[in-house]
Amino acid sequence: MRPRIAIDAMGGDEGVRVMMAGAAMARRRHEGLQFLLYGDGAQIEAALADHPNLKAASTVVHTDAVVEATDKPSQAIRKARTSSMGLAIDAVKTGEAGAAVSAGNTGALMAIAKLALRTLPGIDRPALAALLPTLGANDVVMLDLGANTECDARNLFQFAIMGAAYARIVLDLAEPRVRLLNIGTEDLKGTGEIRDAATMLRGAGPLPFRFDGFTEGDKIGSGEADVIVSEGFAGNIALKTAEGTARFVTDLLRRAFTSSLRSKAGFLLSRPALHLLKVHLDPNNHNGAVFLGLNGVVVKSHGGADAKGVANAVHVAARLIEEDLTQKIAQGVAGTTMGAPTAANGS
Amino acid sequence: MRPRIAIDAMGGDEGVRVMMAGAAMARRRHEGLQFLLYGDGAQIEAALADHPNLKAASTVVHTDAVVEATDKPSQAIRKARTSSMGLAIDAVKTGEAGAAVSAGNTGALMAIAKLALRTLPGIDRPALAALLPTLGANDVVMLDLGANTECDARNLFQFAIMGAAYARIVLDLAEPRVRLLNIGTEDLKGTGEIRDAATMLRGAGPLPFRFDGFTEGDKIGSGEADVIVSEGFAGNIALKTAEGTARFVTDLLRRAFTSSLRSKAGFLLSRPALHLLKVHLDPNNHNGAVFLGLNGVVVKSHGGADAKGVANAVHVAARLIEEDLTQKIAQGVAGTTMGAPTAANGS
Repeated sequence: MRPRIAIDAMGGDEGVRVMMAGAAMARRRHEGLQFLLYGDGAQIEAALADHPNLKAASTVVHTDAVVEATDKPSQAIRKARTSSMGLAIDAVKTGEAGAAVSAGNTGALMAIAKLALRTLPGIDRPALAALLPTLGANDVVMLDLGANTECDARNLFQFAIMGAAYARIVLDLAEPRVRLLNIGTEDLKGTGEIRDAATMLRGAGPLPFRFDGFTEGDKIGSGEADVIVSEGFAGNIALKTAEGTARFVTDLLRRAFTSSLRSKAGFLLSRPALHLLKVHLDPNNHNGAVFLGLNGVVVKSHGGADAKGVANAVHVAARLIEEDLTQKIAQGVAGTTMGAPTAANGS
Repeated sequence: MRPRIAIDAMGGDEGVRVMMAGAAMARRRHEGLQFLLYGDGAQIEAALADHPNLKAASTVVHTDAVVEATDKPSQAIRKARTSSMGLAIDAVKTGEAGAAVSAGNTGALMAIAKLALRTLPGIDRPALAALLPTLGANDVVMLDLGANTECDARNLFQFAIMGAAYARIVLDLAEPRVRLLNIGTEDLKGTGEIRDAATMLRGAGPLPFRFDGFTEGDKIGSGEADVIVSEGFAGNIALKTAEGTARFVTDLLRRAFTSSLRSKAGFLLSRPALHLLKVHLDPNNHNGAVFLGLNGVVVKSHGGADAKGVANAVHVAARLIEEDLTQKIAQGVAGTTMGAPTAANGS
C-alpha cells in the first residue's frame, strides 16, 4: 500500500486553503503519497480546485464538527468520533493512514491522540518534540514543547529515551548527546523532579545515548546537545521565547538597515547573504512537531504556519512513515532499563 | 549622609578587577556616591590602584570567606556573618549602606538577603526582577528570574504587585500593564497556580495597574506588557533563552556578512546602524536585577558581566537608593488588597 497521510483540514489560524496549499507542496516532494482530508467538504473541494495534483491523490471526508482553539481537552474528547481532528487520528488507529497532521489546539490533539492510539509499552505520557536550529553541525531535538505542563522525574526520564530515539532517526546520530533543561548546570539547581531525573539517567546503566547533565536556556542553540529534555511548560516558554527573540532581532535589524541611505545601500549589497539568514530563522522551515510515545505518528503543525510551513509538517509525517518511527521508538524504549521507577520513587 | 553602596567584590566569573572597574565607571556617573568594598583586601587594593576615583570614595573591608558558585543556600547561610556577600548585605541591614551589589550565586544571595533583611509586610517571598528591551515605547519589567523555582498563586499575585510598583518607579508609568507568562492566552491554559493567580488579580478590586491576562514567550519583547510575571523556573529559562537567541542571530548575521566580498562591503556601509543594534542587544546594557520585596535594596549583577555591565548594576543600585525603592514598594504593597489569601486558598 502506498503511504497515506490523514489531514485535519480545519485546524490552524490560516484556514483550509493554507492546509491544502501546504499538502499540495508536500505532495510534489513525495511522489507516491496519498491523502485523506477531513473537514468541511465544500471548503476542501474549493481549495483543491487550485491543486489538481493533490486532488488526484486525495479522498475527502466531510465532517461538520470542529475542535475549537478554545475547547478544553475534555470537550475535544467528546468530539473524538465526529470532528476533523478526531477522524484524522482515528484513520491512524485503523491503519487507513500512516500518520495524521493537524494544526489545531495542542491540548485537544494530545488528549484525542492519547485516547485513540494509546502510549507505547513503558511510556506514561507522549511528548511533543521538534527540531530547532543550532550553531552546531545539526539541529537539536527539543521536547516536551507544551503537551505536559507538569512532569515527574519518570516522565522526564522517558522523554530522554524517546528524544534520543527520535534523534537517531531524524539526525542520523549513533549516540545523541542528551541534556536536561535547567536554570543552572550545578547538581543542586532546579526542581526536585529535574534533579531526580538526572539521578535516574546517571544510574540507568548502559543507554543508547550520552547523558551530559544540565543545560540552560542560553545554550539551546549552541550545538552542545542533540536532545534537550524539559517539562512542557518551560519547554513551550523556551520555544516561543526563541521564536519571539529571533523576530525581535530581525525587526531591529530591519529598522537599522532603513535608518539611513548609507545603511540602505549596505543592505542592498548584503541582501543575498541576509536572505540565507532569513531562511535559516524562518520558523516555517522548522515546522512539524511530533508526538513521541504513541502507537502511531501524529504531527502538530504550528497554528500560524504558512503553506511552506504546512508542507514541512506533512514532509515530517511522510518521512516518519518511511522511517517507521513508531517501531523504532518502541525498540528504543524496550532496549532501555525502563524499570528504573524504584529510583523515581526515591526508594 | 551621602548614598553608599556595599559591593561584594568576590562574586562573578570575571573576578575582583571587573567588579572594581565597573564600580569605578559607575562612580563617574554618580558624583557623591561612596562605597564599602568587601572581599580579599590585597586583591581589592591591587585593583583600586587603577581607579583612584573609586579608591578615594571607598572603604575596604577584608574578609577571607567567600560564597562559592557551588554553595547550596544552606551552606551560604553559614557564611552570612563572615563572607563578602554576607557582610555586604549586612551593611544594608545596619544602614551603613543604602544598597548591596553582588555578582555571586543567586540562590545564596536570595537566602542570605531574605534572612538578614526580611521581607516587607504582606510579602512571602522576594522576587528577582530585571528590565528587558522591547519593540515598544519602554523596556519591560520581568520577574521572577530564578530566585523562586516553585510558586503558588499568592506568590504570583504578590509578584504582580511588586513588579507594577517597580515599573512605576523605573519606567515612570502611572498605570503599568501587567501580564502573567503562560503557554497560551486562553483562560484554561497553564498550571493551576497561574490560573488561580489570574483569578485573584481579576477579583482583587481596584489595583494601581492594569491586569491584561496571559502572555506567551514570543510576546515578551513585543511591548504589549510593561510587567511580565512568572514563577522563577520558566522566568529564568525565558530570560536566558532570549539572551542565547539574540546571540545566536547576531552570530548568524556575522557569518552572513563575512560569507562573500559583496556582503562584507555591505557590512562596512551598514556598520553604524548595526552598531546601534549591537548596543541595544548587549545584555551588559541591561545588567542589574533587583530583589523586590525585601527591607533593603539588593542588586544582582550577572556572573559573566563585563565592567560596563557591573557599572550598570551599580547604577541601578544608586538610582534605587535615590528613588527610595524600598519605601515605594512597601507603599505599593500596602495600598493593594493583599488580604486576598482567602481566594488563594481556594475558599
